[in-house]
Amino acid sequence: MSAPVVTLLSDYGLDDPFVGVCHGVIVTICPAARVIDISHGVARQDVRMGAQMLAGSLPFMPVGVHVAVVDPEVGARRRAVALETGDGRRLVGPDNGLLMRAAERCGGIVEAVEIAGSPFRLEPVSATFHGRDIFAPVAAHLAAGAALADAGMPQDPRQLVVLDLPEPRREDGALVVQAVLVDRFGNVQLNAGHEALGGASLKLGQRVRLSCADCEREAIYARTFVEVPAGEALLYEDADRRLAVAVSQGNAAAELHLAAGDELRIAPA
Amino acid sequence: MSAPVVTLLSDYGLDDPFVGVCHGVIVTICPAARVIDISHGVARQDVRMGAQMLAGSLPFMPVGVHVAVVDPEVGARRRAVALETGDGRRLVGPDNGLLMRAAERCGGIVEAVEIAGSPFRLEPVSATFHGRDIFAPVAAHLAAGAALADAGMPQDPRQLVVLDLPEPRREDGALVVQAVLVDRFGNVQLNAGHEALGGASLKLGQRVRLSCADCEREAIYARTFVEVPAGEALLYEDADRRLAVAVSQGNAAAELHLAAGDELRIAPA
Amino acid sequence: MSAPVVTLLSDYGLDDPFVGVCHGVIVTICPAARVIDISHGVARQDVRMGAQMLAGSLPFMPVGVHVAVVDPEVGARRRAVALETGDGRRLVGPDNGLLMRAAERCGGIVEAVEIAGSPFRLEPVSATFHGRDIFAPVAAHLAAGAALADAGMPQDPRQLVVLDLPEPRREDGALVVQAVLVDRFGNVQLNAGHEALGGASLKLGQRVRLSCADCEREAIYARTFVEVPAGEALLYEDADRRLAVAVSQGNAAAELHLAAGDELRIAPA
Repeated sequence: MSAPVVTLLSDYGLDDPFVGVCHGVIVTICPAARVIDISHGVARQDVRMGAQMLAGSLPFMPVGVHVAVVDPEVGARRRAVALETGDGRRLVGPDNGLLMRAAERCGGIVEAVEIAGSPFRLEPVSATFHGRDIFAPVAAHLAAGAALADAGMPQDPRQLVVLDLPEPRREDGALVVQAVLVDRFGNVQLNAGHEALGGASLKLGQRVRLSCADCEREAIYARTFVEVPAGEALLYEDADRRLAVAVSQGNAAAELHLAAGDELRIAPA
Repeated sequence: MSAPVVTLLSDYGLDDPFVGVCHGVIVTICPAARVIDISHGVARQDVRMGAQMLAGSLPFMPVGVHVAVVDPEVGARRRAVALETGDGRRLVGPDNGLLMRAAERCGGIVEAVEIAGSPFRLEPVSATFHGRDIFAPVAAHLAAGAALADAGMPQDPRQLVVLDLPEPRREDGALVVQAVLVDRFGNVQLNAGHEALGGASLKLGQRVRLSCADCEREAIYARTFVEVPAGEALLYEDADRRLAVAVSQGNAAAELHLAAGDELRIAPA
Repeated sequence: MSAPVVTLLSDYGLDDPFVGVCHGVIVTICPAARVIDISHGVARQDVRMGAQMLAGSLPFMPVGVHVAVVDPEVGARRRAVALETGDGRRLVGPDNGLLMRAAERCGGIVEAVEIAGSPFRLEPVSATFHGRDIFAPVAAHLAAGAALADAGMPQDPRQLVVLDLPEPRREDGALVVQAVLVDRFGNVQLNAGHEALGGASLKLGQRVRLSCADCEREAIYARTFVEVPAGEALLYEDADRRLAVAVSQGNAAAELHLAAGDELRIAPA
């Protein structure tokens, strides 16, 4: 039988021992667990970024227990939750919308419990490090075989916090989208799939005009970087099957002054 | 039976392959080992920071073999050691004080051996990478079941190097402490527990005055960030149960110009 | 029996979820695999740096499946390959020279297959993330016991791309070398072993003159950092048994304005 899997995603970074301590807590409780770090590079307290990253990554993870911690309100009254999804995953984290987009992609929520007072938490619970004191130990007990119902109090899934994520829209013949994720290469993922371009019947190789608060630039609609001359911008479908903007051998985020949350207009050139 | 655990802490960072190579060496020698990275983000050659981080993290690690490498004198005459602590852990690293605070917290040292000439080391031993050539292989053999006595020459624990760590002191009605650790959020851990504030009978919600070489600022004594308005400083007990300074939704280290080693005065406002 | 080992090396960095997703893909296909991250800190698209790092690290890894991804031409016509080496390792990555230096050090290539159309790939294959869609799944199937021949189409090893790596040369009594790797401490590895100094019959403690485009400086030929006064430069044999330049308690790359690829002359002082 395979080892139970626990995945971790957070804004903890890797310089401090926060992530290592969560690993230690999990392995102490569930020595058989395999712990996979999805990423700890979510921008500080950026719940939307964490939610997008989790939703994009979970389909590639084995079914297991999936902890996510981006938690600006740690220590306040926000709930802490553990969910079971339609495809049999268990998701653990703060109730601030972080888990919801991933839960949707994994078959929706079939059961939820509130875990702030979980019998599995580490005592005393600190005011600032619930990753260590609540989320990691609850996840470890679930990985070790505990039932979700034993991890906390029943919680109506319909009362969980939902993130208000912007939708792409059409305006004056242009598609108006939002930058969602910027990766280390400066490639900028947008909040739209390529079907959103459908109305414009855009073909590979055609040019589009990109406009944002600080940018005005042409880009080629292409399949990938190497199809475009070095230094030129491209619009393409990225590995998450989302539209994205890149500069061939360059850094699109820097050159177009685009950060997560910024609006971008895509119009025919 | 659980897999034997080896934890790693260092100032190697994660950009270079130093950490990966230590993992490879350990797994080659002890294929059953589970390797947990506590952190490799200790500031370059900062033995005190490494010692604090190790001591704060070990209580959350399964009992195992614990390697720490912050080693400004690698290749010089400083000893390399492996220790056994009262609670059954084995600690491996340079004899520069790095391991001592953690050893204290884990029941003190019950046995020590000098391992520079350990039969378990990799030959030839390089002059600059004892993590790979001495510490990792010794740890791996201990994890695989070797006795501490077989790892090196007996060493009197009383002769090991002890770090000179500053203690908090009272001065003109103020508590004078030192910044010890700064995390990625800019929160600054101090070298005192909240009992050090006892004499002042400070209550939650009260104000204190913080002064350092480059700062003069009021802060609220609070339980956690969200109890304080955005932009205001707070003094609180952190997850290691140490006093710490933060700025709600801000960066205390940057705003108060505080770095590890700096002195800070805490006085009633 | 030991768990099958898969190692990963890339220029993905650790901020984005690219590495975590590769772990997830591998563990989904081969739940027994142990995954070791050698490093994901290769400079963006720097195939030479990746090739050097892989070649220097593999000798310390257990024999297994070794994935490397530094892939400026992803999505273009470059081949993707899996190789078997003389010492029984399997190497997986783009055919751009990245794997070749490591393959040489591991006994040469005894078999090769082209894997762009591998039956083990994830469908649909994205244009930009072959780490996830081709390299990780192929590696996982090999780790799970698949034969190399089943991973793709036979490929003549003599047709694989070879990197043009510069060789040290003698010029006017000086040794002219190239900077190859810069580590987090600013130590600069050169493309020569200490035997390259042989003709000069240089002895430990003697001085040499270092010259590059932006530097002119004396250095001591030493065994390690602590043998040299703080602030002084040294030339030494590093842990990879290559010549390297450091500044004791300083940063040689910054002080001598040296980056990977730069030329450096070493002459008697």
